[in-house]
Amino acid sequence: MDVRQIKNPAFLQGMNEQELQKLCGELREFIIESVSHTGGHLSSNLGLVELTVALHRVFHTPQDKIIFDVGHQCYTHKLLTGRAAEFDTLRCTDGLSGFQCRTESPHDCYEGGHAGTALSAALGFAMARDAKGEKNAVIAVVGDGAMGNGLSYEALNHIGDYQKPLIIILNDNRMSINTNVGALHNSLERIRLHRGYRSAKSRTKAALRRIPVVGEAMVHGVEQVKEDLKRLYLRDGALFEEMGITYYGPVNGHDLGELDAFLRMAKEAAKPVLLHVITEKGHGCDYCTDDYDGLWHGVGAFDAQSGRQMAAGGTTQGKAVSRMVTELAAEDERIYAITPAMTTGAHLTEFAKKYPKRFIDAGIAEEHALVLANALALDGMRPFVTIYSTFLQRGYDEVNHDIARMGGNVVVGIDRCGVIGEDGVSHQGIFDVSLLLPVPGIILAQGRDAAESARLLATGFTAEGPYFLRYSKNAMPEQPLSREPLPIGRWERLREGEITVITYGDFVGEAEGAARLLEMDGICMGLVNARFLKPYDAEMMNTLLAEGKPLLVYEEVAGIGGLGSLLQQVAAGQESRTPVHSLALPDRWIYHGKRRELLRRMGLDAAGLRKTVRELLGR
Amino acid sequence: MDVRQIKNPAFLQGMNEQELQKLCGELREFIIESVSHTGGHLSSNLGLVELTVALHRVFHTPQDKIIFDVGHQCYTHKLLTGRAAEFDTLRCTDGLSGFQCRTESPHDCYEGGHAGTALSAALGFAMARDAKGEKNAVIAVVGDGAMGNGLSYEALNHIGDYQKPLIIILNDNRMSINTNVGALHNSLERIRLHRGYRSAKSRTKAALRRIPVVGEAMVHGVEQVKEDLKRLYLRDGALFEEMGITYYGPVNGHDLGELDAFLRMAKEAAKPVLLHVITEKGHGCDYCTDDYDGLWHGVGAFDAQSGRQMAAGGTTQGKAVSRMVTELAAEDERIYAITPAMTTGAHLTEFAKKYPKRFIDAGIAEEHALVLANALALDGMRPFVTIYSTFLQRGYDEVNHDIARMGGNVVVGIDRCGVIGEDGVSHQGIFDVSLLLPVPGIILAQGRDAAESARLLATGFTAEGPYFLRYSKNAMPEQPLSREPLPIGRWERLREGEITVITYGDFVGEAEGAARLLEMDGICMGLVNARFLKPYDAEMMNTLLAEGKPLLVYEEVAGIGGLGSLLQQVAAGQESRTPVHSLALPDRWIYHGKRRELLRRMGLDAAGLRKTVRELLGR
Repeated sequence: MDVRQIKNPAFLQGMNEQELQKLCGELREFIIESVSHTGGHLSSNLGLVELTVALHRVFHTPQDKIIFDVGHQCYTHKLLTGRAAEFDTLRCTDGLSGFQCRTESPHDCYEGGHAGTALSAALGFAMARDAKGEKNAVIAVVGDGAMGNGLSYEALNHIGDYQKPLIIILNDNRMSINTNVGALHNSLERIRLHRGYRSAKSRTKAALRRIPVVGEAMVHGVEQVKEDLKRLYLRDGALFEEMGITYYGPVNGHDLGELDAFLRMAKEAAKPVLLHVITEKGHGCDYCTDDYDGLWHGVGAFDAQSGRQMAAGGTTQGKAVSRMVTELAAEDERIYAITPAMTTGAHLTEFAKKYPKRFIDAGIAEEHALVLANALALDGMRPFVTIYSTFLQRGYDEVNHDIARMGGNVVVGIDRCGVIGEDGVSHQGIFDVSLLLPVPGIILAQGRDAAESARLLATGFTAEGPYFLRYSKNAMPEQPLSREPLPIGRWERLREGEITVITYGDFVGEAEGAARLLEMDGICMGLVNARFLKPYDAEMMNTLLAEGKPLLVYEEVAGIGGLGSLLQQVAAGQESRTPVHSLALPDRWIYHGKRRELLRRMGLDAAGLRKTVRELLGR
Repeated sequence: MDVRQIKNPAFLQGMNEQELQKLCGELREFIIESVSHTGGHLSSNLGLVELTVALHRVFHTPQDKIIFDVGHQCYTHKLLTGRAAEFDTLRCTDGLSGFQCRTESPHDCYEGGHAGTALSAALGFAMARDAKGEKNAVIAVVGDGAMGNGLSYEALNHIGDYQKPLIIILNDNRMSINTNVGALHNSLERIRLHRGYRSAKSRTKAALRRIPVVGEAMVHGVEQVKEDLKRLYLRDGALFEEMGITYYGPVNGHDLGELDAFLRMAKEAAKPVLLHVITEKGHGCDYCTDDYDGLWHGVGAFDAQSGRQMAAGGTTQGKAVSRMVTELAAEDERIYAITPAMTTGAHLTEFAKKYPKRFIDAGIAEEHALVLANALALDGMRPFVTIYSTFLQRGYDEVNHDIARMGGNVVVGIDRCGVIGEDGVSHQGIFDVSLLLPVPGIILAQGRDAAESARLLATGFTAEGPYFLRYSKNAMPEQPLSREPLPIGRWERLREGEITVITYGDFVGEAEGAARLLEMDGICMGLVNARFLKPYDAEMMNTLLAEGKPLLVYEEVAGIGGLGSLLQQVAAGQESRTPVHSLALPDRWIYHGKRRELLRRMGLDAAGLRKTVRELLGR
């Protein structure tokens, strides 16, 4: 059938298993073809085709609620709920979101993005249903990684008490499919099955290690967290049963008949049930299933036939930072690298290979990663924790209450800063500056390019106290890297002019572009690289205020609470007559799209800066 | 012996059990006497006397590391490490902290405050020890409530992998002591013991319910979370064993011989062990052990003989808010009250009693409580979640990513706002304004007194979208409460003058005091009650800027990112010539002491405001 013609999932009812299988093939092809153009999350979606089809056959959204934890694995759900025709706009400006999105469809009851929220949300929906005397099903689809997050645990604990109908699908995609798994099973059969499943797992264990080079020396990894959880929960589901949650499984996540039978059983249950579904990431696509490094997790455009991804040229600030950490770790045995389940994304595979004993993958556990790092630092080590800006929000309390308050020498790398583009609203790295500026005693920096980011990283390891280094994932030219420290709290004056733009990070380059444009307008734009946001360069700021030419703080973060507001506060405190303007992100949610396009629309690219400068100067 | 003479714990080595018992009695008396003057955490400390003595006999700080989760139960630890002579300064300005404090003693290796950090920190110390080839012990003392926090779970999972020596003391203080528990036991004996322990538990269950009036109807409570955990972990310790953590216990936490034997066994272990210790909160003090409502958890000064606490006169904003929620819930069945383990502190016992099906104690799980509330709201309910300002930091991501992004009608009560006084640095409610102002689409309000707080609470239930209401625990006069809504985003102009002070919350009263003082100086001070921080009153702000008289934003939160910086940004954006000054908390940590004393020192009380106004006017 033509996937584009699907309006809603009702047609699934009339299909037999053979037709459903054919449909799954078509959906899978559609996803590969579509994502090859737009980019997106591929492997996780290919792994969930059959499960999603089975869910929509047994349950009826929007009455029944299906919540995908994190949510980037919901493509089949979007296709079945009538969004295929718009799929070429996926993750594009004004197009479909790459996640569940309430305003996009009534079939999307909740919005994910950050791991671990689905179980709490499902419980809320179940409670609301019961308060209203309704009978709909509530289903949370949670990956095995997210099950290790503290929030999932808090919710699981509560769900087990509630004892009203609620269905948890544990999407276990780290194991290959055990072809012996099938059909319905009673408790004893489950035990047998489970043993078969374990032994199949052992056979494929070596192949499935995400970082094969690290092997057994790896102190603790996301794989290990997942292993533990299996040991904990899946020994015949005993733990879930203890919690008051009935365990069904394991179920072959690519066997439509088996899924259908188990889902119908779950639907009939009068209390919480967990259905353990084994799926294969990238199922049905060779280059995805052969991927042990997560290269096909989230991708840009690629060649659908060969599976050749477009090579991204140049480097990023993040890559330069990771390279410098790895280099410094060779000489300083106190340096640890810690990541909450982002080894590949944080470019730490090299570090993990070279220094396995000092590499820690803490699983999807930002809070734990930060407190662990703090204690390591207080006892003389020099930990480097790298966390995406948007996920650092999860660890704000640990930054404030633990790291900053005790003042340990923790270097935190804040990755994926700024407007994040295609992942959209749940992943923007735009709030961390507002979060961190009010925290006493910390250092906050960002480099303008790869070379400066590496130097600022090296500076961090010479600093006393907590040091936060922001960086982006934007492509930029390769540069030779130096470890020469930069003076903490000092800015760099790049140009003098009639108006001075104060900025940092990627926007220094953007501002240089604007300066060139303004030259054509006959305007000479001054420029300061404010590479330290905290402490800011009070001496230079005083000089600038004294000079009296207008200042414009230009930044790729929320305007409220950004560096601009801090410097406006400084100027107000001095009763300075020098105007301090601010050009930053507006006070609204920023959705998905290409970063450059989003910046342009908000008047935040070089052209927008030029326009603002001309307006401020009245020319 | 004279507790005041203790310099360090070495003297414990020479004592026999009888002498140690006598010492415990003396320590207990000292604590009761001392806390009766200074106030502090009483019950939890009385429950930990024997355990702490036993710990310091078997282990040797500061080489060995003892970390108390949360940390307010460390008084005996402080006494044994030479701080008794200063105990009359406990929680006073410049005096001893009520928590472990690194700058206070080398015996304090970590600082708690917020639940769930001890296990992660302990693992960090263990890793650092192993990297350095040292042999010291690392011990984390964690309460049964904190064990239900997601952060504890993330850490436990990692500790089980690490497989190097680390000792977890599960301080289980919700059960009465089973006198049959004692001596060393092998695995089978533990099972027998455990059964005995369970049956004793059943007998005392009714008496131990924290909110007896709620009884079985309570949907889910902190008690229930703890029960679940016991069911999960303590069925012969099987779960801990599964995680790779050897389980010992249960142990009578008031039997020095038993504690000594188990601790020495734990000390010899070559891998992580968990020692399950049953303690009685308030042990050895009648009025504390008879306390089922947490009245003796944290106390002010009291009469040590009779156990009569000084009655606090008047009311608080928080009490008024809770009373109004309870009143509104009578007419609106969609209203839920949700608290993360703060039923008594949040004055929700009345609500819980009247509407047990709509009262949810989520346990020490702020993140879960917020996401749960969000889903309830998205499905038509009107949840009220109350969280202390300092603990809302734990849920920042859920506020931003879940509640605000999806725009559900959640009313969040932010309790214990402002300078918190005696609990000190880890509990100040001073960062939430900086955290929340940059979040798009939310409403943020604070009332000046009990009556306005109640009206603002009622307003919250009429509002569309997320509504955050701040309030303090400061004593203030009783007032009749009204549910008449206030216009959202509108300020109240109380006085006109030569300079206008813009403030909110308790500081409105403080500013009125300053205005009276300034009248004596011949200065007429204007005053605006900025009861809505977001959206701010743009119309009135424009009027004030147009009038051109200096403005002073005066607030009891971090100055960076506060309302002051927002209004300075507004003025700068309009290129206004009207000076906007800011008087708020400085960019440093605020330690413990009486709130009024701390405010005075920082120049933030009425006298300080008067001084600032005079300086600004040059008079």
